[in-house]
Amino acid sequence: MKAGEDEGGPVCWKGSEVKPAGGSLLSRLSATVSAPGWSKVSCPCCMSERVEPLVMVQLRADVGPETKRWLLRLIGASQKDGGAGLLAHPGEDATGDIIVVSAPRCTLLRATEELGLCKTYQNGEMEAFSYNDRDNFKDSENMEEFLTLAERQYMVKYELDGLRAQRDLRIPGLPDSCTLHKRDNIWQKLGSVGVIVDTFPLHNTGQLTDLSKAWYSGNQLAQPLDSVNRYFGSSVAFYFSFLDFYTWSLLPPALLGLLITYFSASVQKEVVESVSGSQGSGDQDDSGPGVSGHMLQAVFSMLWSTVFMELWKRRSASLSYRWGTLHLAERFAEPRPGFHGDLGVNPVTGRVEPLFPEWQRDLRMAVVSVPVVGLFLGLVVFGMTGFYWGEALAQQLTEDWGSLLSQTLLFLPSILHIVYTNMLATAYRKVAQFLTEFENHREESAFQNHLTAKVLVFTFFNYFAVLFHIAFFKQDVPLLRKRLSSLLIITQLINQVTEVVIPFLVDRFISAPHRTEREDDPQEDKFRNQGKLPPFPGLFGEYIELLVQFGYLSLFSCVFPLTAVLLLLNNLTEIRSDAYKICKLFRKPFCPPVANMGVWQIAFEVLSFVSVVSNCWLLLLSPQLQRMGEEGGMSGTNLLLAAVLVEHVLIFIKIIMSVLIPDEPDWIRKKREHIEYSSMQALRQQKLHTEES
Amino acid sequence: MKAGEDEGGPVCWKGSEVKPAGGSLLSRLSATVSAPGWSKVSCPCCMSERVEPLVMVQLRADVGPETKRWLLRLIGASQKDGGAGLLAHPGEDATGDIIVVSAPRCTLLRATEELGLCKTYQNGEMEAFSYNDRDNFKDSENMEEFLTLAERQYMVKYELDGLRAQRDLRIPGLPDSCTLHKRDNIWQKLGSVGVIVDTFPLHNTGQLTDLSKAWYSGNQLAQPLDSVNRYFGSSVAFYFSFLDFYTWSLLPPALLGLLITYFSASVQKEVVESVSGSQGSGDQDDSGPGVSGHMLQAVFSMLWSTVFMELWKRRSASLSYRWGTLHLAERFAEPRPGFHGDLGVNPVTGRVEPLFPEWQRDLRMAVVSVPVVGLFLGLVVFGMTGFYWGEALAQQLTEDWGSLLSQTLLFLPSILHIVYTNMLATAYRKVAQFLTEFENHREESAFQNHLTAKVLVFTFFNYFAVLFHIAFFKQDVPLLRKRLSSLLIITQLINQVTEVVIPFLVDRFISAPHRTEREDDPQEDKFRNQGKLPPFPGLFGEYIELLVQFGYLSLFSCVFPLTAVLLLLNNLTEIRSDAYKICKLFRKPFCPPVANMGVWQIAFEVLSFVSVVSNCWLLLLSPQLQRMGEEGGMSGTNLLLAAVLVEHVLIFIKIIMSVLIPDEPDWIRKKREHIEYSSMQALRQQKLHTEES
Repeated sequence: MKAGEDEGGPVCWKGSEVKPAGGSLLSRLSATVSAPGWSKVSCPCCMSERVEPLVMVQLRADVGPETKRWLLRLIGASQKDGGAGLLAHPGEDATGDIIVVSAPRCTLLRATEELGLCKTYQNGEMEAFSYNDRDNFKDSENMEEFLTLAERQYMVKYELDGLRAQRDLRIPGLPDSCTLHKRDNIWQKLGSVGVIVDTFPLHNTGQLTDLSKAWYSGNQLAQPLDSVNRYFGSSVAFYFSFLDFYTWSLLPPALLGLLITYFSASVQKEVVESVSGSQGSGDQDDSGPGVSGHMLQAVFSMLWSTVFMELWKRRSASLSYRWGTLHLAERFAEPRPGFHGDLGVNPVTGRVEPLFPEWQRDLRMAVVSVPVVGLFLGLVVFGMTGFYWGEALAQQLTEDWGSLLSQTLLFLPSILHIVYTNMLATAYRKVAQFLTEFENHREESAFQNHLTAKVLVFTFFNYFAVLFHIAFFKQDVPLLRKRLSSLLIITQLINQVTEVVIPFLVDRFISAPHRTEREDDPQEDKFRNQGKLPPFPGLFGEYIELLVQFGYLSLFSCVFPLTAVLLLLNNLTEIRSDAYKICKLFRKPFCPPVANMGVWQIAFEVLSFVSVVSNCWLLLLSPQLQRMGEEGGMSGTNLLLAAVLVEHVLIFIKIIMSVLIPDEPDWIRKKREHIEYSSMQALRQQKLHTEES
Repeated sequence: MKAGEDEGGPVCWKGSEVKPAGGSLLSRLSATVSAPGWSKVSCPCCMSERVEPLVMVQLRADVGPETKRWLLRLIGASQKDGGAGLLAHPGEDATGDIIVVSAPRCTLLRATEELGLCKTYQNGEMEAFSYNDRDNFKDSENMEEFLTLAERQYMVKYELDGLRAQRDLRIPGLPDSCTLHKRDNIWQKLGSVGVIVDTFPLHNTGQLTDLSKAWYSGNQLAQPLDSVNRYFGSSVAFYFSFLDFYTWSLLPPALLGLLITYFSASVQKEVVESVSGSQGSGDQDDSGPGVSGHMLQAVFSMLWSTVFMELWKRRSASLSYRWGTLHLAERFAEPRPGFHGDLGVNPVTGRVEPLFPEWQRDLRMAVVSVPVVGLFLGLVVFGMTGFYWGEALAQQLTEDWGSLLSQTLLFLPSILHIVYTNMLATAYRKVAQFLTEFENHREESAFQNHLTAKVLVFTFFNYFAVLFHIAFFKQDVPLLRKRLSSLLIITQLINQVTEVVIPFLVDRFISAPHRTEREDDPQEDKFRNQGKLPPFPGLFGEYIELLVQFGYLSLFSCVFPLTAVLLLLNNLTEIRSDAYKICKLFRKPFCPPVANMGVWQIAFEVLSFVSVVSNCWLLLLSPQLQRMGEEGGMSGTNLLLAAVLVEHVLIFIKIIMSVLIPDEPDWIRKKREHIEYSSMQALRQQKLHTEES
């Protein structure tokens, strides 16, 4: 179903026409009206009967009409006049507090080129889109076919975020203190003075219904990833693809875990039976599947994690080709709005823009970011030490006093620790944001990756510090097993409840009654209702959940073979609950086109190498192996030596495997090289043409 | 001094003019003679008064005149007629057994574009050369300025190697069995039937004298690397740059080694003195610099090796920019002559050429190459085991018998082992060559890298197996120290003698009298004399010597702190002796342009990681540390645990360091990105132009 169709024809509000008042910025604009209520387009090719509402801008309630008119003109003005080259609609009421934005064809096509998206060429191949060559790309007439909804909406945001004042300027209707200086980012400024409260993409009800039907309502095994990419954008689609791939990859370790549990259970039974003298066993291995099962599990999971990550990289490359994000040109585009520096000529693109030397960024990271992150990790350790110390003290006091009052004292360390950890996490998130801003990254993706990496390291450390402490310092395998299994079961239950059940209940019984929607509601109210939903919290939480899962599985799985089974079961529901969440419970997010999972890819790979160390260590600790060593006359030192040797060999094998399995399928490599070759040839040709002309 | 000038004007031999006989291939050729004796050039821009002799082709002595005439025509014919587009000269005697080859301007310029060399553009930047845009490149009028001698000579070889039969063809003057089939490689075929004995580049006496003066005759500290690159080509220049960089990088560890030796010597003296009661010592550390010195040395050398490799990568990138080899286009050029496969359209370049699927190559490597290499490594271990077993047996027998005869028996195992090892090495080299041919690599550089990697692994294993055996199995640090110091001193002395002194003496007293050269000798005899020198054995031997050195230094340096000092002294002479060798004692080699050290880079990096393992292990073994542990009440297991912990931390630091230090300087990254950006833009423009035309 196409946008607009379900509204019965073109969007046509009764909003009063905006008069082109006081020719401050747009005096040269002379265009024709396309759809009623929408601002005018300057280019005849962009005129169309139907305009699709893409993004809603929520203004402060008491914003003056002259400010809103100025904003409408700014959004509608062509790019060479310093505008965004978009289409703006003032909503039902011309003086109201919303603006609905759409994009004409030319702006979308130019943004496609600027972002470096690949689209289907006339010969059926994906090629980097070129505005000049637009007629040779498939569907380039019809924007709703050519670009996905997520791309169109992101492009609107991209253009709005890119608005910069062309000269010093007073914003009409605002106090004199709110003046824009030359090259100030307009959208950022308007946000900081509070004129713009929110900017969010609008749902397309028809498409959303179709998507949710195909995604989570039935008993589908496969997710409609292409539709997810079309509707939500590639970063969301990459998350769900990874979740899908990861879930199916859990099958082999889950099967192995089941087998091992079954056999060790049967061996224990047999041992019991043979002791009681009822039945003889001849076909069982002497060394006891308890140990060999654990070892098998550990070695298998160490190698499995490498194969899994390498195969995912290949899948990720082909998805990125399919979704046209293989050659994103972010580093050649305008820097992100928050980037600052001295104006200069970019040596790469030759454009005038703020420049910031690389070495200064490196210096800031090395001298400020790394020590601060280290400090916070130290504070986590400090908190844990304090907790253990406090617990011992409370134990001591309780024994000494023995009263009911002191019994409650036993809970004090835990409570204090939880409060401390939460405060630390909140403070850290602010600090991480500040540090990453301070590092002044040029590209949005670099910014996001550095921010994610910082939060990720801390969160992961927070989650795993206790387990590592038990494994490496207390060296208490039974406690580790107990802790791990309870963490697995309890956190998953809690996650499922907090992630889905509660939001669902809230949505159903508390929020929903307040925003009952009727078919004949005015369009504007429907849009406003979307703004009432909470904003999408981003994918960090989802990814970290997977990473922590993967950590349980790869780091400690040899102490609890059923980990993979539990995770598999959890993820099968997780796919559905995450899909339901993003479709129904939150506002639609803006998703920039991305070519891969970014820093998460690295996090999973690092974890898979750390897992070799931890598994070898846990195997060494296992009481069975210790007993076996004693029986076999191996000293503790020799056992340790053997473990170290095995660890080094496994790491070596993992490195070899990850080098040998190519990171992209052969056919993608060929296509990539073909593009490189054509670019090289084109560069040579271009010089010739420049020469001739 | 330019080629030809020292011969007093243009090269002008009295060789009889070759008549354009029987218009088999070249009937369409209608050109003007340029320099007397040389074949004609087809294009007016290539005509020049002076032709520089670049490459000599040595034919079989009894080759028929019609075969030689055919060859001359083939070399001289234009490329679209299936020739090499070069200039050929039949030598003094038209029926003699040599052909001298030169190259006209157009062929050189086209080859420059095909190889993807960068040259100085009119704006002073290095840019990928484009034939169409040739007039905007600096010096593109004068080939002897524009291209280096090494490049010109390599291009001649590149064109000759690329000759392919355009249709089935009988070679005149040869038996009917020697027919060329369509697309057969002509030069390979002629070599295999014995018509062509040798193809080698000619020295330019004037340039050579200048180069050797600046390189090794005086007491220069810096090598004339740019001149080396001009005269010998980038692969030789990269070796000498690395040797240079490596030698200077040895300074810090050498200084540290000297300090540690000095202080531990003075501590020992003090200990002796304090025992004899002559002098008190207060300022010395209690823990004994013996251990702490070794530890310092070990940790320092582990971190040093990473910094050294990372800085070399940066230097390598800037050298490659300076020498115009940053954007080599080998993968887009014609495949190497030995490459075979079904004819098809290359999906990258769109040209018709043999294709060979990647997966099949991977399969061959995995199923054939890896097991065979493993087998040979096993045979090395087998030989070593046999040697130890034989030695023990001989010892036993000598003790039992005690006669003089049985005394000589003691040497038998060593002799057998040496013979076995040598035979194994010879066989392995053949097998490696065969395996790499079988893997059927498309590019020459890939072929060379895979061949080098195979031989490298084996040679390295051969060199270090004994040392590893002593370190890890015998765990005998004093023996290791003795063996290492003797290896360092003896092998270096032997190397210096065999590499320089012997060849020098042979050259001076045995070869030289036979090829006395007088000023008035005919030019041809001077060329012939160069053919009498032995061919250059390649850089494998030089590189492996450095790698083994680096192995001694990084793997075992903590047992013998003076390693770096000895290596530094050795390398200072090595630079000179290697330079002398390549200039005087061998034929000039063909050197393809390369962008880096290829597989050697990886070998050094791998070694630097293995060094962490070996150093931690050796420190653990050191008797001082064992004693300290006992005194401090640490059990062997805890000591081992501490060593493993230190090892993991050091490897972690090394990985972080190698990630953080960028592999290319900032200014090169910008230039590279600029080229990528221009190519992207050009590709878009090109489509537009194609559209318009």
